[in-house]
Amino acid sequence: PNNWGGDYPKSNPPYRNTPPHVCEEVVVLPLDDTERSKTIIEQHGSDLACIVVDVLPCAAGMIPLNPDYLTMLQDTARRHGILLISDEVVSFRVHYHGASAARNFYPDLVTLGKVVGGGLPIGVVGGTSATMEAFAPHDNAPVPQGGTFSANPLTMAAGRAALAALTVGEIDRINELGNYLRQQAEEFASQAGVAITVQGAGSLFRFHAKQHRPLSYREAHHDIAESEALRRLHAGMLERGIYVAAPFWGGISTSMTKLHVDDFLDAFRACLRETPDLKRLDRRTAT
Amino acid sequence: PNNWGGDYPKSNPPYRNTPPHVCEEVVVLPLDDTERSKTIIEQHGSDLACIVVDVLPCAAGMIPLNPDYLTMLQDTARRHGILLISDEVVSFRVHYHGASAARNFYPDLVTLGKVVGGGLPIGVVGGTSATMEAFAPHDNAPVPQGGTFSANPLTMAAGRAALAALTVGEIDRINELGNYLRQQAEEFASQAGVAITVQGAGSLFRFHAKQHRPLSYREAHHDIAESEALRRLHAGMLERGIYVAAPFWGGISTSMTKLHVDDFLDAFRACLRETPDLKRLDRRTAT
Repeated sequence: PNNWGGDYPKSNPPYRNTPPHVCEEVVVLPLDDTERSKTIIEQHGSDLACIVVDVLPCAAGMIPLNPDYLTMLQDTARRHGILLISDEVVSFRVHYHGASAARNFYPDLVTLGKVVGGGLPIGVVGGTSATMEAFAPHDNAPVPQGGTFSANPLTMAAGRAALAALTVGEIDRINELGNYLRQQAEEFASQAGVAITVQGAGSLFRFHAKQHRPLSYREAHHDIAESEALRRLHAGMLERGIYVAAPFWGGISTSMTKLHVDDFLDAFRACLRETPDLKRLDRRTAT
Repeated sequence: PNNWGGDYPKSNPPYRNTPPHVCEEVVVLPLDDTERSKTIIEQHGSDLACIVVDVLPCAAGMIPLNPDYLTMLQDTARRHGILLISDEVVSFRVHYHGASAARNFYPDLVTLGKVVGGGLPIGVVGGTSATMEAFAPHDNAPVPQGGTFSANPLTMAAGRAALAALTVGEIDRINELGNYLRQQAEEFASQAGVAITVQGAGSLFRFHAKQHRPLSYREAHHDIAESEALRRLHAGMLERGIYVAAPFWGGISTSMTKLHVDDFLDAFRACLRETPDLKRLDRRTAT
């Protein structure tokens, strides 16, 4: 909070001693704030090279962005000739055609990873043919590509197998399991009087130590006590045999069934019951 | 050549529309030119965050750097408190303790890849404990680390197996095969009257369409006719069942024996004999 800035978010350095120009050349938009984001984009106009957006931004709280916000981004980017990039490294899996297609959002480039490598390291960039032409391996290519991570054969094979398993029917099934997990977990927390809510969409979930689901990056910020509550929940789940990505998010894969989700929910319910500190901390800090 | 600059190399953009500050904040040293590089480093002094060097720089021609040059880099960096980084993604394999250790060169950080992933995608940063402390996963870590590529279990297992196979004895054996390949190839080219020389060290080799082994980045530059000669050689080797990394470099792995190297050399000799264009082009452009 002490470096967020006011209505116009500050561009903060990701590392100590980040060269100042890196921050000066990046403009930060307030997540899901349509009017303010539009004003900021219009101020810079075609000086902006691109707008990068995740329609289900995991690190920002996994808050599904509003349709109005996405429409504004798309219209404003088109009007000013700004490239539109959809980061779907985490969120691709929510729809057979990807996270942006599911929202009728049409970026120029999509970034992919994780699922499309079948568990092996991978990064993918795809997009319209006009945009991808920039990477074409000509002499004097505008944006030459290549390197240690490129086109690893084992990753390609594993990714192909993972994608073959990710059919329309399977995506529907794991998305339903995601709905079930999110709803049940919120209901159990509410019954136990513990301030835990769950954000996410499809087969993805992110738990917050909050009375209400956060609806913006700033609302999703956890203070020290809330962070401590999630850490204890994380440890409690681990003690019960369930490993969750820290602070507390995850996804349901095609090799999982309702039995796995029920195991997860049983462990979660046990944590709510048997971790008195969790309850106390959450009560004290619930907003 | 048209963007190299004079005695003080220009910092050129890697991509079209690279933000100007990226180039302004990178200082380029003339490879293996001890006096001039020292002058440039001294000019910037402790304004420099780090010096990145590859003691066997593949993309710059795979020219083994002079001991004097490495000593100067190390002394000058220490005197000004500049971090010294050795890029050993390709060159690590030349010695059991890595490429810098083989040259009595002691960087603060070493970057690794390729071999240490056993053929799977990987990037590794290692170094002195004082330097690595910057990456430690504390809250407020100066340089927080993590992401899709981090600590993939299959890559870790494959890398461990590859490193276990890369014993002192095996490194000696494949380095000897490297010497044999480089010497034989140069001898065959000389006998055939074709201007091809071979740079590299240990188990690594890089072919140049040049009468003499290039000794600097600028000498290693291939003009259009020289590049065309390497392209034809590349195609000729492929037609004979040998795939070499473009333009023409590679390494000998622990699963190879002298039989494989002799197959390679046989194919190379056939190319020298049976690709008249190769000879003609090289004769015309040899310097």
